[in-house]
Amino acid sequence: MLRTHNCGQLRKSDVGTEVTLCGWVESKRDHGGAVFIDLRDRYGITQVVIGPPEADKSLIDQAGHVPAESVILIRGKVSDRLEGKTNEKLPTGEIEVRSEHFEILNAAATPPFTPGQAELPGEDLRLKYRFLDLRRTEMQRAMVLRSRIVKIMRDYFAQHDFIDVETPILGRSTPEGARDYLVPSRVHPGEFYALPQSPQLYKQILMVAGFDRYVQVAKCFRDEDLRADRQPEFTQLDLEMSFVDADDIMSLIDGLVAATAKEVLGKDIALPLPRMTYEEAMRRFGSDAPDLRFGMEIVDVTDVAKKTEFRVFRGTADAGKFVRGINVKNAADKYSRRQIDELTSWVQNDFGAKGLAWFRVEEDGSLWSPIAKNFDAEHLAEIKEKLDGQPNDLLMFLADTWDVTCRGLSGLRKRMAVELELFSPNDLNCSWVTEFPMFERDEESDRYVAMHHPFTAPLADDLPRLKDQPEKCHAQAYDLVINGSEAGGGTIRIHDPGVQQQVFDLLGIDEETAKDRFGFLLDALKYGAPPHGGIALGVDRWVMLFAGLENIREVIAFPKTQKASDLMTEAPGEVDSQQLEELHLRTIKAKS
Amino acid sequence: MLRTHNCGQLRKSDVGTEVTLCGWVESKRDHGGAVFIDLRDRYGITQVVIGPPEADKSLIDQAGHVPAESVILIRGKVSDRLEGKTNEKLPTGEIEVRSEHFEILNAAATPPFTPGQAELPGEDLRLKYRFLDLRRTEMQRAMVLRSRIVKIMRDYFAQHDFIDVETPILGRSTPEGARDYLVPSRVHPGEFYALPQSPQLYKQILMVAGFDRYVQVAKCFRDEDLRADRQPEFTQLDLEMSFVDADDIMSLIDGLVAATAKEVLGKDIALPLPRMTYEEAMRRFGSDAPDLRFGMEIVDVTDVAKKTEFRVFRGTADAGKFVRGINVKNAADKYSRRQIDELTSWVQNDFGAKGLAWFRVEEDGSLWSPIAKNFDAEHLAEIKEKLDGQPNDLLMFLADTWDVTCRGLSGLRKRMAVELELFSPNDLNCSWVTEFPMFERDEESDRYVAMHHPFTAPLADDLPRLKDQPEKCHAQAYDLVINGSEAGGGTIRIHDPGVQQQVFDLLGIDEETAKDRFGFLLDALKYGAPPHGGIALGVDRWVMLFAGLENIREVIAFPKTQKASDLMTEAPGEVDSQQLEELHLRTIKAKS
Repeated sequence: MLRTHNCGQLRKSDVGTEVTLCGWVESKRDHGGAVFIDLRDRYGITQVVIGPPEADKSLIDQAGHVPAESVILIRGKVSDRLEGKTNEKLPTGEIEVRSEHFEILNAAATPPFTPGQAELPGEDLRLKYRFLDLRRTEMQRAMVLRSRIVKIMRDYFAQHDFIDVETPILGRSTPEGARDYLVPSRVHPGEFYALPQSPQLYKQILMVAGFDRYVQVAKCFRDEDLRADRQPEFTQLDLEMSFVDADDIMSLIDGLVAATAKEVLGKDIALPLPRMTYEEAMRRFGSDAPDLRFGMEIVDVTDVAKKTEFRVFRGTADAGKFVRGINVKNAADKYSRRQIDELTSWVQNDFGAKGLAWFRVEEDGSLWSPIAKNFDAEHLAEIKEKLDGQPNDLLMFLADTWDVTCRGLSGLRKRMAVELELFSPNDLNCSWVTEFPMFERDEESDRYVAMHHPFTAPLADDLPRLKDQPEKCHAQAYDLVINGSEAGGGTIRIHDPGVQQQVFDLLGIDEETAKDRFGFLLDALKYGAPPHGGIALGVDRWVMLFAGLENIREVIAFPKTQKASDLMTEAPGEVDSQQLEELHLRTIKAKS
Repeated sequence: MLRTHNCGQLRKSDVGTEVTLCGWVESKRDHGGAVFIDLRDRYGITQVVIGPPEADKSLIDQAGHVPAESVILIRGKVSDRLEGKTNEKLPTGEIEVRSEHFEILNAAATPPFTPGQAELPGEDLRLKYRFLDLRRTEMQRAMVLRSRIVKIMRDYFAQHDFIDVETPILGRSTPEGARDYLVPSRVHPGEFYALPQSPQLYKQILMVAGFDRYVQVAKCFRDEDLRADRQPEFTQLDLEMSFVDADDIMSLIDGLVAATAKEVLGKDIALPLPRMTYEEAMRRFGSDAPDLRFGMEIVDVTDVAKKTEFRVFRGTADAGKFVRGINVKNAADKYSRRQIDELTSWVQNDFGAKGLAWFRVEEDGSLWSPIAKNFDAEHLAEIKEKLDGQPNDLLMFLADTWDVTCRGLSGLRKRMAVELELFSPNDLNCSWVTEFPMFERDEESDRYVAMHHPFTAPLADDLPRLKDQPEKCHAQAYDLVINGSEAGGGTIRIHDPGVQQQVFDLLGIDEETAKDRFGFLLDALKYGAPPHGGIALGVDRWVMLFAGLENIREVIAFPKTQKASDLMTEAPGEVDSQQLEELHLRTIKAKS
């Protein structure tokens, strides 16, 4: 290699060694007739001195004019730094390299921004000049962490006898689920491939083929309107196992969570990870991905509400809806009336709540609220007791449908926990949510839709209910939740063609449609399908969570914007008309 | 798990243990009132006995009717097999499991073929029912081997400090190279993404970003007319390093070749792997991917040809073309006149040769040939000496352009080596071909085209020639050759914007075109680009070579046909008109 050492490697014990270093000019300063350069590479920074007596005037002069971010090669001797000049913050801070030879490998033009600059430029500029942005220490760390986490995952599953199988990117479009990205075929005019939304069907096929344990770090694609934390292409750790139940999958992933936490964060995680049913999660936390880094559990006071004179509460309770609340401990003095009004608007706008009722627990233990006068003392005491109200606690309530109280209170919990700093950025809380409902009712079409996908197996105990009470059936489904985010999800699949038929019937998928969409899987299930199940973990999400980052674009080397553009390569772009002709396509002008 | 052991696990030491096994019914036979089932899974086969006294009549009856390839679960005790009934071919052959409990998990319909059947069905049927085909031992082995080889690669590069970075699948179309697969954008009407033919530009960007060592197992896509050994999507082990020269990359890959050969085949490979320049490879073997498992080197006899009376030889030599031949040792008695005539037609049809001249070395050392009478004895003797002709050798010659003699003789070498079994299927011969020409002349457009890609760096010694004698410039390029197949290839890249400009000029790529196609890379090269280079290894090819297979579809779980169809999922397929509308597209009927 051109270098003998990298820029993070040299120590006091190397003093006297002749070395060659290559790297980027992070910064440079003149001092006492010499030029001092902080030379940077992926491994660290080393101070290089170009000055007398080792360097002659022309070399010093050349070094004095090298632009920042240029790539240089220097040769020289490792020396002790002068007393008082050492830098304890740098692993190489006790030494410097006194350069005898200095060579500019690539002189940099003045960049639009430098990776070392104090203030970050706007994200669009960072994405356009991603090669500069990726030089920043934070981005380098995130990419190295991503590489390590994926390696930990791969090693873990290799140790557990999994086979890594690649499934196709050019697949078949299935109108189920999100919108597909399509790829026109040149050989088959008018036909299209679709990029996979997940390897779901293929991995089930691999189980039918007898592979027993499959794993893949798989690229998946969804042409959706992008939210802040979504990308058109994303990465899943996808796996499937035969002859297992939900417990087996969860235990396996427990081990991976513990291994990752240990290797990446040095943390010991107690196993098994806590498990909670969907019903319990919604009841206690209003969310199927509850953030358990803090308490603030939801308490149902509908029965008290029914007895009060307060019209909103009683009306809601009488209508069969719910009055539920949370106790924001010791927070009454931290929220002004105005701030609470702001929270009220927020739950109205973001969650469709009609209003927010709240009580402050006074020093003397009484409840104060603008609406307190509508309540008997007895009922106030009951409410306080139910929520274990102590002086300075803030009790907040929504009176609404089950769904709105869940979403609204879950939102409040999360927001107020952040504002009150109820958890540390270093906390890592992992748990499972299980037994999701099999079906949701789609209001628009007034029919059942699968909450996961149509191959999800119901709980064995629910099988007898499948036909007549499908809304009461629960799935053998499990979501991994880390710090209140869904970090993975999976199900045990149906391996019994009869049960599969029943589920299709419920979903209104007739035989022809089923055959058209996933006929090959139904075929496969006929010819010796083992009981099987699996899970997919969101790799981008895992890296974010383990890196403590909040923007998914910080953990992807070349992400796309929310308009699905790559600002560096300017993709998507126009193509030659000849290319379209070969694909038997014509573009239509968008309607204006 | 549903099972306590897998089907490849039980041994004599387990006798007496109560076990539960799951697997597929490979075969079954009735014997002495009991049913014997060979139960199969990925790990092996175990003999299960359902018979008295453990099983009652109804169980035996049920077992007797279970269809082949059904999935069953059995519980019972591990027992010694009766004397004389052990099977030494099976690792589990000393035991059997006497079943007390028998459960059909999934009863198989009669499959179109069984994985155990002696004669393989046609490939189309195997591809349509891939889940059955993948149950075959050979396919299971190939997939496990593939998983292992990829793991070996990943571990090797992780040990060498490489970072695994994912580059986008939705990229930008660059009209350079092969045809792109396009993906229409919904958000940007009339615009398209392209699937990457390789991560070439991204990996260079990663070097400019300072990642120093990048690796990725990358899916690549080419919409080409498919040859037998090509797939629309294929997998490359792609890597790039900074501050290196060609030697560094080759030494690194040497280590990987040796590690893979050792771990997969138990073979010790001597390092460094032999290296040969492109010029030498074409001169001695007529190919830039010479098969070195056998000799049969090409010998140039143009100087002798010039002296002979044989019109074809002398005319060719006088026209500045070449007469070159090979000595097929000890093969004269193995090829009849008719077979040689067949070879002649073959080199004419497949390589555009005008004919094939040949001589047989007789017992007495003289050369016999239908054309021998056109030669003086002296010249025949010279030819014989040049090719070291011994009795029973067959000397074969082409008189043609350099290219035709190369292609034709290389073809003959390979074909005859196979026919004469000059190498064993177990041989593994790995080497490097280096210093490829920078440019080829494209006859059609009468301009230079890059032999690798336009970012390939010339040899330092050739830099002065770049402007005036580009055809004499050689690239810092290297191909890994295994058993006569290209198993990988790479180059050192240009990191000097001035040299890059010169190369673009030579290739007739003007500024605007360059900016349009890879502007972001040219931008990146301006802001501090390190010297860098890399290589891409064909993963599918590696698995084929290490598995000793000859059909690339045998090492891919879900391959496409030569018409780029997936026979199992029936991709590509038609899509809803609404989908096309959202993509601002209309299909055109193919011209009939």
